[in-house]
Amino acid sequence: MTALSFDRKLRFADCDPSGIAYFPSYLNMLNGVVEDFWAGIGFPWPDLITVRKIGTPTVHLTCDFSRPSMFGNLLTFKLRVGRVGRASLHLAHVVSGADGVRWRARQILAATSLVDHHAIPWPDDIRAALVAHLHADEATQVAPS
Amino acid sequence: MTALSFDRKLRFADCDPSGIAYFPSYLNMLNGVVEDFWAGIGFPWPDLITVRKIGTPTVHLTCDFSRPSMFGNLLTFKLRVGRVGRASLHLAHVVSGADGVRWRARQILAATSLVDHHAIPWPDDIRAALVAHLHADEATQVAPS
Amino acid sequence: MTALSFDRKLRFADCDPSGIAYFPSYLNMLNGVVEDFWAGIGFPWPDLITVRKIGTPTVHLTCDFSRPSMFGNLLTFKLRVGRVGRASLHLAHVVSGADGVRWRARQILAATSLVDHHAIPWPDDIRAALVAHLHADEATQVAPS
Amino acid sequence: MTALSFDRKLRFADCDPSGIAYFPSYLNMLNGVVEDFWAGIGFPWPDLITVRKIGTPTVHLTCDFSRPSMFGNLLTFKLRVGRVGRASLHLAHVVSGADGVRWRARQILAATSLVDHHAIPWPDDIRAALVAHLHADEATQVAPS
Repeated sequence: MTALSFDRKLRFADCDPSGIAYFPSYLNMLNGVVEDFWAGIGFPWPDLITVRKIGTPTVHLTCDFSRPSMFGNLLTFKLRVGRVGRASLHLAHVVSGADGVRWRARQILAATSLVDHHAIPWPDDIRAALVAHLHADEATQVAPS
Repeated sequence: MTALSFDRKLRFADCDPSGIAYFPSYLNMLNGVVEDFWAGIGFPWPDLITVRKIGTPTVHLTCDFSRPSMFGNLLTFKLRVGRVGRASLHLAHVVSGADGVRWRARQILAATSLVDHHAIPWPDDIRAALVAHLHADEATQVAPS
Repeated sequence: MTALSFDRKLRFADCDPSGIAYFPSYLNMLNGVVEDFWAGIGFPWPDLITVRKIGTPTVHLTCDFSRPSMFGNLLTFKLRVGRVGRASLHLAHVVSGADGVRWRARQILAATSLVDHHAIPWPDDIRAALVAHLHADEATQVAPS
Repeated sequence: MTALSFDRKLRFADCDPSGIAYFPSYLNMLNGVVEDFWAGIGFPWPDLITVRKIGTPTVHLTCDFSRPSMFGNLLTFKLRVGRVGRASLHLAHVVSGADGVRWRARQILAATSLVDHHAIPWPDDIRAALVAHLHADEATQVAPS
């Protein structure tokens, strides 16, 4: 399975008084990309959250910002499913502009019940959809944890 | 030098439809804490950025979110200066609620020129102020890199 | 009853690449002021929303932005309760900086049930608290609509 | 000239703990629509702001929110150029969901110099592009004020 790709424009609202991307806005954009990923695999968040009462909070995040992005830049977010745990999902993100990589992130989401915000195993249908998008290179990493 | 502490209330605007803190809003709050830290050591960002044309972009961030925060929760952000490099600043953050730690972060800021967004060494006055807040346990980590 | 006053600093996150306050961030700040007003009169939103299932969505807003605010400016938000309707609350806001008024807003909130998002009359205890803060000049405007 | 139309999805990040659109996020979305309008008529904001040092701050805004929008809703933003003044631009916005109009706004932007944040007349090329999009019904409203 190849990486999934999402284009975004760096908007006025996402930039700061020093003229570059505001990093919390970058993470807001990243969250929107993850939201689109879930819709793309057949499990849009409005259904997951509102109907099935399943949340997917981020429990870990590592980001490296290597080059600044300027207002108006076109960015490509590439997302890879790196691992599907029993109640977790590991994503790797690479965000690029015209001159190459701008930043990278590794993110772990947890499956939780929105009734008590405790971790739950991925339901079978969701798990199957996630595994289907697992990056080929990392297919051996599917594991029950 | 002890940790610096900042209280924040988790506002309506910072929470999401699943009823807990939205993680990019958490990082927006963190950025505001860092902004207050700079003002507290005598170098408010409006002066740094507008007058001296020095930026302090985040180049690395690692976060672990261990327990959810709910709308209305009171949070305490504790900030430690872990290391002052030639052109970098390492900060460690611990964010706690009534029941203990909610999340932790390690953040590296770079000193940059806002003329070309390239790294620059910390000017002497800024460097002195940062070193004065270096965490005692980590004082041996002051280094020229 | 005199106007209620809330001080705010215009943060890095609230400013845009042109160097002044981003107007949606202004409204985010305004919403935080209204949130603090509700807490101040004894009905904090977390209780209203989470426990009593009462929402207070904004149904009308008029803003006039007369002078720009710059990053780092200190702003004072003054709020007046102008009218308490059967299911509505009229607020008037004046936001000032060191050189006088920066912007003004008139806002109407509605009382709604969060079960179906339909308008409901203010419960008696809430209505009493709102009326107690009605601006003296406008006290004759308490009306059942 | 017919109205200009922009589709938007109401994202997770735009909704609040009561489950509906957060109104400052609505205005952030509106600002993005206006940003796209400017790019569409040949004057993208990054050029205007960064190269030509022209800002387009909002000086007046009136909004009426008639029905709530829920997380995941598809919204259509229709924008009409209602009037092109000497140094101002009047826009009318209608935002609709599947069940009809959700909210409306009237917005006045000013042309300003980003050197001193004072009003300036629209440069001729910009003025021509704006007038070309003036709504036919309101074409008589082109005026020098």
